[in-house]
Amino acid sequence: MKPQNVPGAHAAAVDRASLIGRFESVRADSVSIAAPLGAEDMAVQSMPDTSPTKWHLAHTTWFFETFVLEPHEPGFAPFDAAFRVLFNSYYHQVGDQHPRPRRGILTRPPVDVAMRYRSSVDARVRALFDRADHATMDAIAPVIELGLHHEQQHQELMLTDVKHLLACSPLRPAYQARAHDLAHPPGPIRWRAFGGGVVEIGFDASSGGFSFDHESPRHEALVHPFLLADRLVTNAEMVAFIEDGGYRRPELWLDAGWSAVEREGWEAPLYWRRRGDAWEEFTLMGERPVDPAEPVAHVSLYEADAVARWLGARLPTEQEWETACAAQPVRGHFLEDRLLHPLAAADDPDTPILQAFGD
Amino acid sequence: MKPQNVPGAHAAAVDRASLIGRFESVRADSVSIAAPLGAEDMAVQSMPDTSPTKWHLAHTTWFFETFVLEPHEPGFAPFDAAFRVLFNSYYHQVGDQHPRPRRGILTRPPVDVAMRYRSSVDARVRALFDRADHATMDAIAPVIELGLHHEQQHQELMLTDVKHLLACSPLRPAYQARAHDLAHPPGPIRWRAFGGGVVEIGFDASSGGFSFDHESPRHEALVHPFLLADRLVTNAEMVAFIEDGGYRRPELWLDAGWSAVEREGWEAPLYWRRRGDAWEEFTLMGERPVDPAEPVAHVSLYEADAVARWLGARLPTEQEWETACAAQPVRGHFLEDRLLHPLAAADDPDTPILQAFGD
Amino acid sequence: MKPQNVPGAHAAAVDRASLIGRFESVRADSVSIAAPLGAEDMAVQSMPDTSPTKWHLAHTTWFFETFVLEPHEPGFAPFDAAFRVLFNSYYHQVGDQHPRPRRGILTRPPVDVAMRYRSSVDARVRALFDRADHATMDAIAPVIELGLHHEQQHQELMLTDVKHLLACSPLRPAYQARAHDLAHPPGPIRWRAFGGGVVEIGFDASSGGFSFDHESPRHEALVHPFLLADRLVTNAEMVAFIEDGGYRRPELWLDAGWSAVEREGWEAPLYWRRRGDAWEEFTLMGERPVDPAEPVAHVSLYEADAVARWLGARLPTEQEWETACAAQPVRGHFLEDRLLHPLAAADDPDTPILQAFGD
Amino acid sequence: MKPQNVPGAHAAAVDRASLIGRFESVRADSVSIAAPLGAEDMAVQSMPDTSPTKWHLAHTTWFFETFVLEPHEPGFAPFDAAFRVLFNSYYHQVGDQHPRPRRGILTRPPVDVAMRYRSSVDARVRALFDRADHATMDAIAPVIELGLHHEQQHQELMLTDVKHLLACSPLRPAYQARAHDLAHPPGPIRWRAFGGGVVEIGFDASSGGFSFDHESPRHEALVHPFLLADRLVTNAEMVAFIEDGGYRRPELWLDAGWSAVEREGWEAPLYWRRRGDAWEEFTLMGERPVDPAEPVAHVSLYEADAVARWLGARLPTEQEWETACAAQPVRGHFLEDRLLHPLAAADDPDTPILQAFGD
Repeated sequence: MKPQNVPGAHAAAVDRASLIGRFESVRADSVSIAAPLGAEDMAVQSMPDTSPTKWHLAHTTWFFETFVLEPHEPGFAPFDAAFRVLFNSYYHQVGDQHPRPRRGILTRPPVDVAMRYRSSVDARVRALFDRADHATMDAIAPVIELGLHHEQQHQELMLTDVKHLLACSPLRPAYQARAHDLAHPPGPIRWRAFGGGVVEIGFDASSGGFSFDHESPRHEALVHPFLLADRLVTNAEMVAFIEDGGYRRPELWLDAGWSAVEREGWEAPLYWRRRGDAWEEFTLMGERPVDPAEPVAHVSLYEADAVARWLGARLPTEQEWETACAAQPVRGHFLEDRLLHPLAAADDPDTPILQAFGD
Repeated sequence: MKPQNVPGAHAAAVDRASLIGRFESVRADSVSIAAPLGAEDMAVQSMPDTSPTKWHLAHTTWFFETFVLEPHEPGFAPFDAAFRVLFNSYYHQVGDQHPRPRRGILTRPPVDVAMRYRSSVDARVRALFDRADHATMDAIAPVIELGLHHEQQHQELMLTDVKHLLACSPLRPAYQARAHDLAHPPGPIRWRAFGGGVVEIGFDASSGGFSFDHESPRHEALVHPFLLADRLVTNAEMVAFIEDGGYRRPELWLDAGWSAVEREGWEAPLYWRRRGDAWEEFTLMGERPVDPAEPVAHVSLYEADAVARWLGARLPTEQEWETACAAQPVRGHFLEDRLLHPLAAADDPDTPILQAFGD
Repeated sequence: MKPQNVPGAHAAAVDRASLIGRFESVRADSVSIAAPLGAEDMAVQSMPDTSPTKWHLAHTTWFFETFVLEPHEPGFAPFDAAFRVLFNSYYHQVGDQHPRPRRGILTRPPVDVAMRYRSSVDARVRALFDRADHATMDAIAPVIELGLHHEQQHQELMLTDVKHLLACSPLRPAYQARAHDLAHPPGPIRWRAFGGGVVEIGFDASSGGFSFDHESPRHEALVHPFLLADRLVTNAEMVAFIEDGGYRRPELWLDAGWSAVEREGWEAPLYWRRRGDAWEEFTLMGERPVDPAEPVAHVSLYEADAVARWLGARLPTEQEWETACAAQPVRGHFLEDRLLHPLAAADDPDTPILQAFGD
Repeated sequence: MKPQNVPGAHAAAVDRASLIGRFESVRADSVSIAAPLGAEDMAVQSMPDTSPTKWHLAHTTWFFETFVLEPHEPGFAPFDAAFRVLFNSYYHQVGDQHPRPRRGILTRPPVDVAMRYRSSVDARVRALFDRADHATMDAIAPVIELGLHHEQQHQELMLTDVKHLLACSPLRPAYQARAHDLAHPPGPIRWRAFGGGVVEIGFDASSGGFSFDHESPRHEALVHPFLLADRLVTNAEMVAFIEDGGYRRPELWLDAGWSAVEREGWEAPLYWRRRGDAWEEFTLMGERPVDPAEPVAHVSLYEADAVARWLGARLPTEQEWETACAAQPVRGHFLEDRLLHPLAAADDPDTPILQAFGD
């Protein structure tokens, strides 16, 4: 997670206002995401792969305390020395770490202390901003940039994790009460052709802008001609897959995928539940009928692969996806969910192959 | 849990004031036990065998709602129908039940709603009391009696469960800050002789008073002469056991006990931790040095058995213990802990046998 | 396992012929039990709780080598030093031990070497017999006695273990082909009354004869009057229990028993399998229809307890069972199976209570 | 596993002699591999991922019975109908299958029946050969070809599986007694340069010869210039990795690899055992000192990756490896072991990158 693009002096002067603005905005977003939740909702961990909201709030703060304040704040002292271990997720590089599956055991510090931790660190970062000379600004700006992207990643996790927690409750409480307008049904899939060849993919650091370290360097890749679907796979198509026995037909699945179906007892996407003849889906707005026009969400790679095969297509490679993105602006990012995106790639252009995209 | 002793009309008239007094007192005790805890502390479950404080608070309330209000309150309606399942622990008799190991997932209802549930049910029980005729009073008094003993059992669990939760935190927070005065060291064990013979044990329902259903009937048992230690085993004796290699000597253990030692890696009582040459113990007042004069707590039956064998004694049978209790008032009940009590029983009175008591 | 009865000099002279006769006979029985099996059948372990036939054959031989030959044979050298660990089952007392769940991994030594191990040790024990003086005879006779009872215990295990192994095979091969004559249906249960009182139970060492060490000393016990069924529970009664929903009615089960039913998915005794409307049972003679007149076999303590409750009875205590055995010769021991034996005990003689016996 | 290359009529005439010759030779090889083993060795399964030798012998026979005899032998009847399930490993395509982790439970059929199964099927395949017309020959030749390659795969497994079994025995028996001549120590790694570009990889079906279906089609790939080591990584280098703390340094490992190190407690390659200051290795010839000059064997992908990183290199991609193989004949295939092969690939030719090859 080495930042790719360190702005120079002039840029820094320009960036200072923009950066502090984004700092305020991103930090406030996390608090807003937590706002509908009670202290208990923020403390509990529903499975080892999720983290409590409180942990996310504190961990993202720990990032700025550890990587911005500690090296740059004169006379730095930690808000609470114990938090260095409790909210560290980088075991080997930055000291000890509280074990991930036990994050839910941390009833202390309580939520209000975690919130004071946020306020305190935010104020100190602002103060550091205010008095930073150019050299300090050059040093901290890329770290803050990284910290904000890091926090935005955790904002996605806060929503997926609290969705899992609320879905575990027999009360099935909504994170947010909100009416759901049915989506507009899309037309049938149409296939866009891409020509292939030796293409450039990967982030170009000289272009400016932010990227994570595994997104570069810019390099060549060979892509064969392929057809790409022009929209995501819908819930209606997923229902048709289920009703066509998709979860009971091993020939549609990769071998490891079929093992997962049998071991886990998969019969539908995560959070789907059959009620009589219809399907319901647990969402952040509570349980509601599956909307046929919406893109499928919360499917594993294996399920996406099986649905693609059932549709006579396949999933795209990273190279194909990046090529297609460069050629057309991609819509369809959704905050909370993993989407099945229909892409098609075919060596033989007569065999369009459907593909999935995991956000 | 059928109550043993249903008081008659006159008795009920006398009991009404006493019973409502105890109802107020016991119900208030639960709230007091929860007072030092935050909402997060009350929501989290630290292992499948424990329950969150919030669950205890609601479940003991569910008891009065289900067994007192529902059959006797005119026009009864539940505080919240979902609570019938969430806070039921009697699966097969009274409908569905939320699974025990998943009680910690119930972030909803939050603590303040659980507290309102308590207040509401308490007020309705009081109202029922106020207007109950003799027949109703005769019907509800034994159920309330049972409910109060039931709640007192859960008060013990609230303390053992929250102790386990706090001990799991790397912060090792105290439930209550309080200075600890070292206990007065007891003298060496002395042995009291009991004569044995055919004795009567078990609760005598005709005596009045409360008992749980497995404590009766009064029946005869044959007890052989035995020697009983006059005090509990101390931490000092436990330390000596450990330093004599007690946890590494299979000949001191029952076969299943030794398997548990190896499987669980036992090296000391639960909550003990070696610091250099000394032992520390996590308590509700936080971590502190083991007090040599206090009775040993938090040992399993297997550990108690091994310590007894190491001391040249054995654990008492239920019959021996009840015989000894009838002959002498027993001191040494402690609210939160399982105690190792030195009793001795010997068919051959030259071989005094130490014994343990689990509260 | 300290032998209880050490014969004197004259007795030893008489015993020598008798003991060597029983030694030959018991040792030959083990080989006969293995005779229907192939080398593969004798090598495989079907679950951690069973042992391969080859292991039983070698382990019982290890007993005589270790406890008879090693201390008493002049110039003793082991048949194979490695066998001291491989075939030892007394970890803590006699050195290292191959782990029990891994006995099936021991393809070496092969069966023919295990058989040579038996022949060699047998010949050396015979030679020791032939030249033993009275003092040696006095020392080895009780150990040999113990070794023979130990081997007879393992003969039971050889049959239960190989039954489990063969039952695991989809081929369901018979250990022995043999026609099965239907048993004669017994009449309804009749209840024999026993008076209770302070009775003597336990083995009396002064009476001569053999016992294991946990069968003594002779001591007093208090037994309340009880009724005992005069025969074992039959398969017909077990089928009626099943058809009456016995495995689906929690009120018939102990709490831990009901947990086992749910966790293990019990629906019938081990080795029973429904075929259409009828039940089949896997036996050492292969699979065959359940014989309604035979005693039930291969039920757990929990199942026996539930069937007893369903029949309006309960299982007997050890004290009741031993009292009844002393008063009447007990028939109904079967080599391979755990039997449900109908005993009744009642404090109130109007409530006869059925009871089970596990061999 | 659809064969790629179906020979024509003339070719079939030529192939008939060659094919029957290879059939005899490959089928005899399996029997030779089993020759040093006893019936018990061939029956036992040491872990779920391995199969007993007997199962391999029968399963490879089942292939010819099912795919050659059943469709082509007039009046076909199976050797034993039960074997269709017991020795089937293609669950979803060809009917039921005995579960893989339970193959060791199959003590029946015994080894001698499995051998008769082989002889019978071999004789019937020979008879089919003898009387086959051109059309039949065209139909069965590619299936037999596939069956022989399939059997050769299982011959490798027979050796790796029996190695695992024998290594589990505390006796550590040798599969074959044979003296080991120390290998000749290779010189330091030298790096061969490959130019990269768009290259063709994959099997070209039009070339004749055999391939498995996942080895084709022939297609283009983009390979960047890289350096490839000219020999495999040696045990001496592995020892140096270990002594440099390789198994204790997370920075050398992929994240999932380091999790595996911690979870599995890896400290050395499988089958290595430290004896004092030296390393010993269990081989098919028994336990012996690690030969420093031999290539490393029995390392996981994660270990290979970590060693490569420690050597300042990385593992090759499939495309790089196939490119290098096409440019130079590759030596270094070993029958039983997974080898760490030093390949180097570098976008920047100044950073040679070591790479591994798993056989």
